[in-house]
Formats: sequence, C-alpha cells, structure tokens
Amino acid sequence: MEYYCQGSHLQGPPTTPPREGQAAFSSHLGLDIELHQSARFRAPGVMAGYQANLRLTLPLTCVILEVILIILFAVLVDYDYETDARQWHNQLLQHNDSNYNNDFYYRYPSFQDVHVMIFIGFGFLMTFLQRYGFSSVAFNFLVAAFALQWATLMQGFFHGMHGGKIHIGVESMINADFCTGSVLISFGALLGKTSPVQLLLMAVFEVAVFATNEYILLSILQAKDAGGSMTIHTFGAYFGLVVARVLYRPQLEKSKDKNCSVYHSDLFAMIGTIYLWMFWPSFNSAITAHGDDQHRTVMNTYYSLAACTLATFTMSSLVGHGGKLDMVHVQNAALAGGVAVGTAGEMMLTPFGSMVVGFLAGTISTLGYKFLSPLMEKKLKIQDTCGVHNLHGMPGILGAIVGAITASLATHEVYGQGMEDVFPEIYSGNFSASEQGVRQAISLAVTLGMALIGGVIVGFILKLPIYSSPPDTICFEDSIYWEVPGETESQEEFGTVMSEEVQKPLNS
Amino acid sequence: MEYYCQGSHLQGPPTTPPREGQAAFSSHLGLDIELHQSARFRAPGVMAGYQANLRLTLPLTCVILEVILIILFAVLVDYDYETDARQWHNQLLQHNDSNYNNDFYYRYPSFQDVHVMIFIGFGFLMTFLQRYGFSSVAFNFLVAAFALQWATLMQGFFHGMHGGKIHIGVESMINADFCTGSVLISFGALLGKTSPVQLLLMAVFEVAVFATNEYILLSILQAKDAGGSMTIHTFGAYFGLVVARVLYRPQLEKSKDKNCSVYHSDLFAMIGTIYLWMFWPSFNSAITAHGDDQHRTVMNTYYSLAACTLATFTMSSLVGHGGKLDMVHVQNAALAGGVAVGTAGEMMLTPFGSMVVGFLAGTISTLGYKFLSPLMEKKLKIQDTCGVHNLHGMPGILGAIVGAITASLATHEVYGQGMEDVFPEIYSGNFSASEQGVRQAISLAVTLGMALIGGVIVGFILKLPIYSSPPDTICFEDSIYWEVPGETESQEEFGTVMSEEVQKPLNS
Amino acid sequence: MEYYCQGSHLQGPPTTPPREGQAAFSSHLGLDIELHQSARFRAPGVMAGYQANLRLTLPLTCVILEVILIILFAVLVDYDYETDARQWHNQLLQHNDSNYNNDFYYRYPSFQDVHVMIFIGFGFLMTFLQRYGFSSVAFNFLVAAFALQWATLMQGFFHGMHGGKIHIGVESMINADFCTGSVLISFGALLGKTSPVQLLLMAVFEVAVFATNEYILLSILQAKDAGGSMTIHTFGAYFGLVVARVLYRPQLEKSKDKNCSVYHSDLFAMIGTIYLWMFWPSFNSAITAHGDDQHRTVMNTYYSLAACTLATFTMSSLVGHGGKLDMVHVQNAALAGGVAVGTAGEMMLTPFGSMVVGFLAGTISTLGYKFLSPLMEKKLKIQDTCGVHNLHGMPGILGAIVGAITASLATHEVYGQGMEDVFPEIYSGNFSASEQGVRQAISLAVTLGMALIGGVIVGFILKLPIYSSPPDTICFEDSIYWEVPGETESQEEFGTVMSEEVQKPLNS
Repeated sequence: MEYYCQGSHLQGPPTTPPREGQAAFSSHLGLDIELHQSARFRAPGVMAGYQANLRLTLPLTCVILEVILIILFAVLVDYDYETDARQWHNQLLQHNDSNYNNDFYYRYPSFQDVHVMIFIGFGFLMTFLQRYGFSSVAFNFLVAAFALQWATLMQGFFHGMHGGKIHIGVESMINADFCTGSVLISFGALLGKTSPVQLLLMAVFEVAVFATNEYILLSILQAKDAGGSMTIHTFGAYFGLVVARVLYRPQLEKSKDKNCSVYHSDLFAMIGTIYLWMFWPSFNSAITAHGDDQHRTVMNTYYSLAACTLATFTMSSLVGHGGKLDMVHVQNAALAGGVAVGTAGEMMLTPFGSMVVGFLAGTISTLGYKFLSPLMEKKLKIQDTCGVHNLHGMPGILGAIVGAITASLATHEVYGQGMEDVFPEIYSGNFSASEQGVRQAISLAVTLGMALIGGVIVGFILKLPIYSSPPDTICFEDSIYWEVPGETESQEEFGTVMSEEVQKPLNS
Repeated sequence: MEYYCQGSHLQGPPTTPPREGQAAFSSHLGLDIELHQSARFRAPGVMAGYQANLRLTLPLTCVILEVILIILFAVLVDYDYETDARQWHNQLLQHNDSNYNNDFYYRYPSFQDVHVMIFIGFGFLMTFLQRYGFSSVAFNFLVAAFALQWATLMQGFFHGMHGGKIHIGVESMINADFCTGSVLISFGALLGKTSPVQLLLMAVFEVAVFATNEYILLSILQAKDAGGSMTIHTFGAYFGLVVARVLYRPQLEKSKDKNCSVYHSDLFAMIGTIYLWMFWPSFNSAITAHGDDQHRTVMNTYYSLAACTLATFTMSSLVGHGGKLDMVHVQNAALAGGVAVGTAGEMMLTPFGSMVVGFLAGTISTLGYKFLSPLMEKKLKIQDTCGVHNLHGMPGILGAIVGAITASLATHEVYGQGMEDVFPEIYSGNFSASEQGVRQAISLAVTLGMALIGGVIVGFILKLPIYSSPPDTICFEDSIYWEVPGETESQEEFGTVMSEEVQKPLNS
Repeated sequence: MEYYCQGSHLQGPPTTPPREGQAAFSSHLGLDIELHQSARFRAPGVMAGYQANLRLTLPLTCVILEVILIILFAVLVDYDYETDARQWHNQLLQHNDSNYNNDFYYRYPSFQDVHVMIFIGFGFLMTFLQRYGFSSVAFNFLVAAFALQWATLMQGFFHGMHGGKIHIGVESMINADFCTGSVLISFGALLGKTSPVQLLLMAVFEVAVFATNEYILLSILQAKDAGGSMTIHTFGAYFGLVVARVLYRPQLEKSKDKNCSVYHSDLFAMIGTIYLWMFWPSFNSAITAHGDDQHRTVMNTYYSLAACTLATFTMSSLVGHGGKLDMVHVQNAALAGGVAVGTAGEMMLTPFGSMVVGFLAGTISTLGYKFLSPLMEKKLKIQDTCGVHNLHGMPGILGAIVGAITASLATHEVYGQGMEDVFPEIYSGNFSASEQGVRQAISLAVTLGMALIGGVIVGFILKLPIYSSPPDTICFEDSIYWEVPGETESQEEFGTVMSEEVQKPLNS
C-alpha cells in the first residue's frame, strides 16, 4: 500500500537520479562499475541459494498439484446434461426444447466478465508496486489457474455430487472463479511477502475452507449471498489478514523503499480497477436467478458503484495532504460499493438504497486506507499490502449487515411471486422474513469464525521454513523470481550504428 | 494534442537527460539539490493556496451533488417492470412468458461493451499526455460516475416519467452511458486545463442540455440517431469546443512542454483506442430495435471502421514529416468511421456504403488533426487538447448528413416490413422518405445550435474564478491534484541491502 | 523473443545509464551534444531515403487495396437474411418467429471476445519489444483491419456465394476475424523485420491461401476444426516461419540490442496474454453448433488452459537460470493449451482429457522457447521473433493429432443424437469414426503443405527490394516508421516555471 512511503512522495523520486548520475559519472571517468551493477542483479550469496531452493520447490509443487488434479478429474468429474452431447440432445427431443435454451447463452457473458475481473482485474490492480509487476500479474495468473481447477472439485464435492460424479457446466465455472476470487483477495494482503509456493499452498487450504463455509451458509443456513459479500469478500479478506498476522515481519521496513508505486505502475493498476468497477454488476448477478433477479442485481450494483466513486473522491481529497487526491483510494475504495451490495443486490434494495450503501462503503473504505491501515500495522501487526481490509473486509461486513436488514424487511407485497426466486424459504413459508434476516446475520458470524480459524492454521503451515519465502530485505521485488530486463531503452546504440550504416543500401 | 510539440519530437526528449545528469553530477559533488527537487513537487506559494482551495471545493461539490442525486432518486426513481420482482413475475404468469425473454439478455452484453468504451476507452485514450495520466483516467472516472446518475434523472424526466416515477432498466442504463459519453467528449477538448470541480459543473449543465436536445430530436422531430452521430458526437464536440473557446488561455504556451506524450503514455492511449474501435459496433447498435436492426448496425459499423483505419494510415503517412506515421492520428482518426455511421448504421446503408463513409471519415479526420487544429487554435482561439473536432465534430456532421441522405432514399422495396423498426413514421405513412431526410437535416442544425448556445453559457459559468482552475503554468500536470510517486524504480537500494544481508538465513 | 538478449539480462540494462550520464556530464561542461542526439533520431542518410520511400509505398498500398475492396464489396457483397430488413421480417412473418431468435444474440458475444483477442490480444502480446510498441500494436491494427475485409471476400467466394453474391452476417464476421488471426500469427514470426507494406502484401496472399486450405479441409475433406488448430494456428505459424526463412537476415545481430524487452513493455505484453487466455474458450467455441457444442467447447478449453498454465510455470522454473521464471514463457507458452484443443474442443474430450492435452502443450511450448528456438535460428536460419513455432506451430500440430485420435474414438453411445452436430458424416453413416480420424490426419498434412508452398512463394515476393524493408541495423525500431516522443517526462521545467509564477493570481 502506498501509505508506507508517502513520506518519500513529498521528496520526489528519492535516490535514483543521483545514483544513476553517479554511475554515469564513474563510467565517464573509466571506473569499473560492473561489480556494483551485478551485485544488484545477482546478489551472489542469498540470491543463489534462494533460487536454487525455488527451482526445486516451485516446479515440484506445480507438477504434483496438477497431476493430483488430473487424476481426481479423471475419477470424479463429468459433463453435466447441458454440456454432454447425448444427454443434451435427449433433453431436446424429450422436451421439444431449443438449443437457444441452453443455459450457456444466459450465463456465459456474465462468466466472461467475472473471468476478466479475476485475471485482469485482480492481476493488474496489484501491479501498483514499482518492482513487483511481473509477480503480481503472473502469480495471480498461476494461483487462479490452479484454484479454479481445485475449486471445481471442492465445490462439486459439497454441491454437485450425483451418482459419485461431479457434474460441471458454465455455472460451476462461475462458482470456481468466485472461489478463486476469494483466494486472490487473501493474496492481496500478502502481496510481495510470500513465494509462489506459499501462495499455491494457501490456495489448497483456503479453497477447502471456502467451500465448507459456502456450504454451511448457502445449504445449511439457507442464507442468500449471490455476490459473495460474506462468502467471497469477508471470508477472503479476514482469512488473508490472519495469515498476514501470523507471517508478520518485524523487519519489513528493510524493503519499504520498494513498497510503493511509480508513475506508470499506478496507471497499470488503474486498468485493474476500472475493469473490476465496470464488471462488478456482472459479478454480483452472475449466479442469481434468471429474469428480473439478474436484471435488478446489475442495476443495483451499477448505482452503488457510481455513488461509491463520488464518496471516494470526496473523502480522498478531504483527508489528503494539501487536499491532494491519492491514487490508492481511487484504485481501491471506489470499488467498495460493489462489495457492499454483494448480498442485497438481488433483493428489492431500490436504486436509492443501493446508492446510500455505495456512498457509505466508499467513505469507510477511504477512511480505512487513511487511518486504520497504519494503525493495524502498528498495533495489530498486520501488514496488509493491498489494504484488503478496507476494500473487502469492512465493505464485506457492511454488505452482510445490509443483506440481513433488507432480508428481514422482505414482504410479499413488494416481491410478489418473485419471492420464490429471491427468498424461497420465505416464499414457501418455512421462514419468516425476520428469521431469514437472523440467518443472514449468523452467516456473517460463521464466516468470520471460519476465516479466523482457517487463517491461523494455514498461517502457521505457511510459516514453516521450507517454501522459499523471500527474506525481509527483498520483499516486493521481482528479480528474485524473474529474469528481469532493464528499465529503460538502450537507444544510444541506435545513433552510433546508424552512422556506420549511412552508406549501405536500403533493402535487405 | 501532440501537434503542439512536434517540433521537440525532432530534437528528441529535450532537456531531461542533461538535467538529470546535472542533478546527478551535483549530487556526486556533494551539493544539496533538495531545494530544487522539493520546489518541483511542492512549489510552496501557488501550490499550497491552490490545493487548500481544491480541498474545499472538490469534496464539497462531490458530496452536495451526490446527496442531491440520492434524494432525487429516493423520490423519483423506481424499477421498471423487467427489474421489479412483483411486476416481472406478474408478467410471466399473465403472458406465460419465460425468464429468458427478459430484455436483460438482449441488451446487457451491448451495455457492457458501451460501459467499457466509456470508462476504459475514453479514460485511457486521454492518458497520452506525459504527466496527466492520473487525472485523465480518474477524472474521466469521476465525471462519468456522476454523469450517469444525473443522466438517469434528466433523460427519465424527458422520456420515462409514468405516474410521477422514472422507471429504469438496462435500456435506461445504456442511455445514461451514452449521455455520459457526450460529456466526456467535451472533456476531451478541455483536457488538462480545467479542475475536476469545473468538469463536474460542466456535466451538471451539459447533461441537462443533452437531454433536452435528445428529446427535441427523437421525440419532437422524430429523427433517427441510434448511434448518436448528432445527439452524442456532434453535440458533445461542439459544446466542448465552445466552452474551450470561452476558457481560452493566451498564456497556455507556458505549459506546452507538458502538452505532449512520452513513449509509454502513447501505448496506454492505444488501449483506449483499440477498445473504442472494437466495441463501436456495440455502441451504435445498443439501443436499435432487436433482430435484423442490431445485427445490421453492428456489421455496417465493423466495415466502416475497417475502411477508416486504412484511410487513416494512408493520410497519416502522406502528410507526416518524412513519411512517418503519427500516433495521434492512429489513436483518434481511426475511430472516426464509428462516429460517421452513428446515424445511418441501422439503415440499409450496405456494407459497401459503410466502407465509403468510413474511408471519408478517416480522411477528413486525419487531415483535420494535421491542418485544421493548429489553425483553429491560432485563428479561432480554440485550444482543443484531444482534437475532438476531428474525431467527433466533423465525423459527427458527416454522419448526420449520411443519415439524412440514406433516410431520404428509403423505399418499401428495400426495407419491406422492416421499415416499421427503422422508420416507423414512413412505415405508418406519416412522413415520406424525403420528409424524414429533411427532419434529419433539421436535427443536425438544432444540435449545432443547442451545443453552441449551451456551450457559451456554460463556458461563462465555468470562467468564474471560484473553481480552482489551474494556472497557465501548471496545466497538463497531475501533481497539483495528486500525490504523485516518482518516475523510476529505486533499484539501487537493492544491491546495497543485499550485501548487508548476505549472511542471514533465508526464510522468515 | 527475449532469449536473444538473455545474456544482457544478467548484466542489467547495459549501456544506458553510462551513456545518459555521459551526455549529462558533457552537457554540464557545456559541450554541444546536439549532433549526437539528432543523429539518433534523424540519421540523415539512410533514414531520409528510407522514409521518402515509405511515404510513397505505404499510402499507395493502403489506398489501392481499400479502393479495390470497396469496388469488390459494391459488386459482390450483400446482407444475409438475418441482417437484411426485408428478408428477416419476411422470415418473421412466415415462420411466426421472434426477433430474439436472430443468430446475432447467440454469436455476437463470442464474436466480441474473438475481436478482443485479435486486436488487443495479438496487438499487445507483441509490445514486449522495448522500442517496437507503436509498430506492434498499430501494424497489427492496420493489417487486421485490411485482412478482415479481404477475408470476407475470399472466404465468401469459397463458402458463401449464392446467386453471384456473398451474403454476410455475424458468422462471416467471426470467420473473417479467424482468418485475420492466422495472418497475425505469421506477423509474429516476422515482427520487427518487415515494413507495413510487406505485411499488407503478405496478408493479400496469405488470406487467399488460407481460404483455399480452409475450403479443402472443411468442405472437401469434411474435417472438423472449429477452433482452428490446423486452419488457423498450424497454417499461420508454418506460413510465417517459411516466410521468415526466405527473408533470413544474417546481419540481424546488428539490431540485437533492441530485440528484447524492458520492464514496462513486458507488462504491456501481459495485457495481450491475459486477454488471449481468458477469451480462448470463446475463440474455440465461436462457430461450433449451438447448444451443448458451444457449452462443451468452452469448458474443455477452460480446463486445458488452466492445466497448461501450471505446466508452463513448472517448466519455466525448471529450465530457467537459477530457477528464475521467464516472462517470455508465461506470456506465450501458457496459451498453448488453447491452441491444442482447437480441433478436439468440441468433441467429447472430457475435462480430464483436456487437462492432459493442456499440460502437454504447455510443456512442449516452454521447452521449445528454451531449447528449440535458438537451434532453429542457428541451424535452420529461421528468425522467429515471437516464437510462433512454440506457441502456434507445435501446439497446433498437437491439436490436430489430438483431434484425429478423438474423432477416431467417437461412438454413438457417447455422442447420442449429438453426433449430428459434431460429426455429421459419421452420424449419417457416410464415414466410420476411424475414417473421420484419417481425414483429420490428412488435413494436417495438407495444411502443412499449403503453408510451406504458400510461404515460400510469398517469401520470395516479399524479398523484392521495393517495399521499404528496414535495414538490418534498424530492425525492432519504431522511429523509422513513427514520430516517436521522448522516453521520460520533462519534469524539470515544472519547478523552474513554478518559481517564476509564485506571485501570480490563481485562476485564469
């Protein structure tokens, strides 16, 4: 999070130009600076050992996980009736149905929007760090590619086993992406401080706990949470925060100069932000019932986000140094409105209600970035790199509360026959509206409990010194994982070479 | 617009390397350069006063506008029958209808494409300026988030009041995004020279005038303009140009070194360009009638844009210095083909006709960037930062003319029963085809008049010295609005820290 | 491909800082460095002649091609019955049909995903080069805009002539984009070494050969290849590789310092990668039969890509210097899973089968980048800039083989009535499953033959010294085609100007 280095903002890009000049000057004088440069890129002692370790652990982890996945898929997974050639065509014949009624056409556009949020949205949102862009976008890619396969199995185990087989189609793909999103939220809290091996292991456990919690909420408690204020955002945020607490690094200051953005990295991050913002209506509505439910969820989310954006700019300017806006707030807090209507979005929240919720979410999120995050690091020893507590944690809880209240106010007069889709248990007379509200509230408590317990256990597992975790001094740094090219173009060659070639013929 | 600093292109990045070297050299000699650097970021006198002002005006403007919006939404806005649980389910029962027939499924994918154009397309297209990327993408975000809420009300007031309530759904969301697009076009003319407070105020007025003009054209004159050649592009461009004329800055030269691009900012801008180009078929077809109309509009726009792209490269190379292409042309003129079929796209323009229109549009747009824009600044005192006159103004007028001609040539033989969707008044015998054409032409004149009068009034309102407008010397500069991080990575630390740590254990 | 300059990676950004410092130092001492700088940007002799040539050939080529296209469209192309107003409405009346059944609604979302892959995916994937970003994304744009028009005609000539007219709609638009994709794959092999005129000419011929090959495979041999493992990927890759062989530049080393990435260019390239990865399910399913076929193809591709990503990280770390990952692999090899299920994706491959194929594809692709590409350049004299052999060539062949095997295993028990959509010839009893498999295998051989012969001929055509091909010393360099702005922001001005202005009033 940028607030770590706001001080340095005021002084401008601190040491780079002098250093570069120094090197240049030395070079001009004919001094050998190669040792200095190579130290920077190779750092013989630590780095070599570190990478040897990573060369062993990362491929091993990836290949073992993928082989297990392939075996489990071979044994357990099958097409559902809408993706299976024989079954779908039987269905067509028996019900005189049309190919246009395959659910694919009514879920896939939403799925693709969610997919963009997971891979572009989360991936680029985390590229704000100056020297961690490769890792941000590529580890996001790796972890998500693993988690969506694993989530297919875990969620299928809880929700979709029929005759010993998990049946999959576009809806299970959306749910797998949702579960993946939760893991990526936790990743946001740990960004820059964990190796890809640790992230993959975290995904292994977190997906399992996620699926269990989701099962308890949706199937046992019969709570509603289509956009995942509780199951995805609250769970992912607090799980990640607890892991970050267990992995607390008292010496992280040693990497603080790299724990901030540069001009262009902030623009890359805005790509992530804007995609998340635009497609959040699709996220919240992707698995709600067809018809008015999806339509309404989209609209509620759209207005909540718009109001949230104005709240974010209001608060960011109000609390900024000299009235200046902060990109951290715009990149993150402007999204809180989507989180906060994740539960109530499908309900009859009204556009006006959505706007109030969005405005509140943007306000608490911005204030969280400004005041709460530094405090959490200092007092609670939680180093939350992306501030997921402000973007997903608090707005998730707000969303759960709004959901509980809206549910408890549901009446047959307002919902009519539509009650069946939104609150089937109220419709069928099993619950009263207030009982539904109570179950929503219990769900929040369960989610927090599962996240805390799960996070503690997984945190201690990840603390074992066998995962090539980066040392405190080289956190937020791509070059320990990646072949990193230079920063600027070697243009100078051009002029020189050109003059040599002036006389040569033109076409090869 | 880049043409301001084409001269400096020929000389390469002018003063940066020497300056950096100078600083470096001084630093090597132990001189204190901190004063120099801090001056650059804080500029005590002007900046402090400026920001104090902004801290007051920006939050106040945002919060007042959002509170008014929320109150008006509470009083006036309601779900339409496709988003309302009770009403939609009544409809299902009464007409034995299917959830799959909710209009959501036939408009939402188009809506999302339009949404991407508004937030990514317009937002990133304007990031070409070297030091105004944060403001470009984030003020675009802020203004759009406000305008879409306000447009819902203003357009609803003119088009959708039933029983004292404005009923909203996916179609009103598309229309709100369209109106927002018009405001963002005007923003393009003013880019870098106005504070966010001025932009928000402009949006307040422009949305109102837009909705009035749209009502006159579509409801009173019965003109057709599905893709908004007139209502969106011509209106937005000339409104913005007139405001820019009123806000003319004779001393803007003082900021000219910042009014150009750098290598990577041009690539960010290309993200905006390509998204606008790809999704323009969705834009033009988003609210046309279902069936052949949407299908045809998409196809006409697709071929118009393709032909326009070839025209742009042709002209750009032909008029460039030494035959070199100019990114400004590719970023902008290649899109003119979408603007120019905004009116006629839904008509039976034929693919070949679309290509001719696209080729013309790309040609006049590129020539406009090269020859007309410098002239307009010099003679008419219109400083059009993004060249919206070339991208939206002239191609919009071309589109209106093409629409008028195509409409006047409509025959029952060509349109068959499809005439009802495209020209309901010709179909029902109220107008002849030529009368429709005349009404299209009148619509263009009305649009120009509304834009000019509206622009003049709003321009003078924005000229009042109370909105924290930036001084001439710090236009096109993020750092007066934003906490701006450094430009390059502070890598040097890495080598140093590493050597200290060589002996330490690896895992935390 | 980055492997050209891996050596320099180890040494860090090699000569830039010294040079910059040198210039800076000289400047500080008052020496005139203007000559040096201008040489770099203007290079009087070669550049001037080169550009004069380009000013002539590029506009001429573009305008001639577009005029021919417009004339051919005027004579030959017409709306199909779903885009034509009269015909569609006749259809509605005669069959009591609904506008919601226009195929537009069931193909257009897929089309837009494919469109994003062509323009953003391919365009940005190639921006990895440090000084070729403008050309990568903009020549991709130009060539694609031309090729999609020309492909409409060539494919229409083979597949859709009725009564002397080519009838077009959303499906022909998807096919045109597919054919364009094949041309862009070939472009990837040539990236940085050919002028836009050469690329346009290559597109002229390649589209024609592509359409012929596609006709032979799909219409004569009755092979299945919905996602184009053979028609698009294998064909495009080997065509491009052969052209690259013919255009071999023994002196290309002279440009090797520009044939690598910089930090931010690798992030731009990741935008392309992620979009290709996300939307590949739409690509493979865009023109399969409606219903279960599209649904299943999407799912198979989704899981193949996920497994491929884990294979890529496994292999990249295993073979990397010191266990480090390489962005080249992540950017490219992670996509091979989509290519490899291009043929079999619509078949009953099972999710588990898809994952095995994806894992294999990622493995061979990464190993290809590491070991095969350097060898191909050294031994076969094929300079494959983007490594299309690893991303499209080998995975395409793998996909063809997997398709042949899967087809030969098709049984009525597994496919049921769905056999009609997937293998109509097996369904109708014309072929046995094994015969279908044989025809798939023959199709691969035909494709390779067409690509090789076509590539050789086109390669020699492109070798003629009349197309302004860049000299060996200025390959991979934007500045010969583009007005290129500076690299870094001229911030220094700001501080200076500010201090002059401290006393002035704030608002203009």
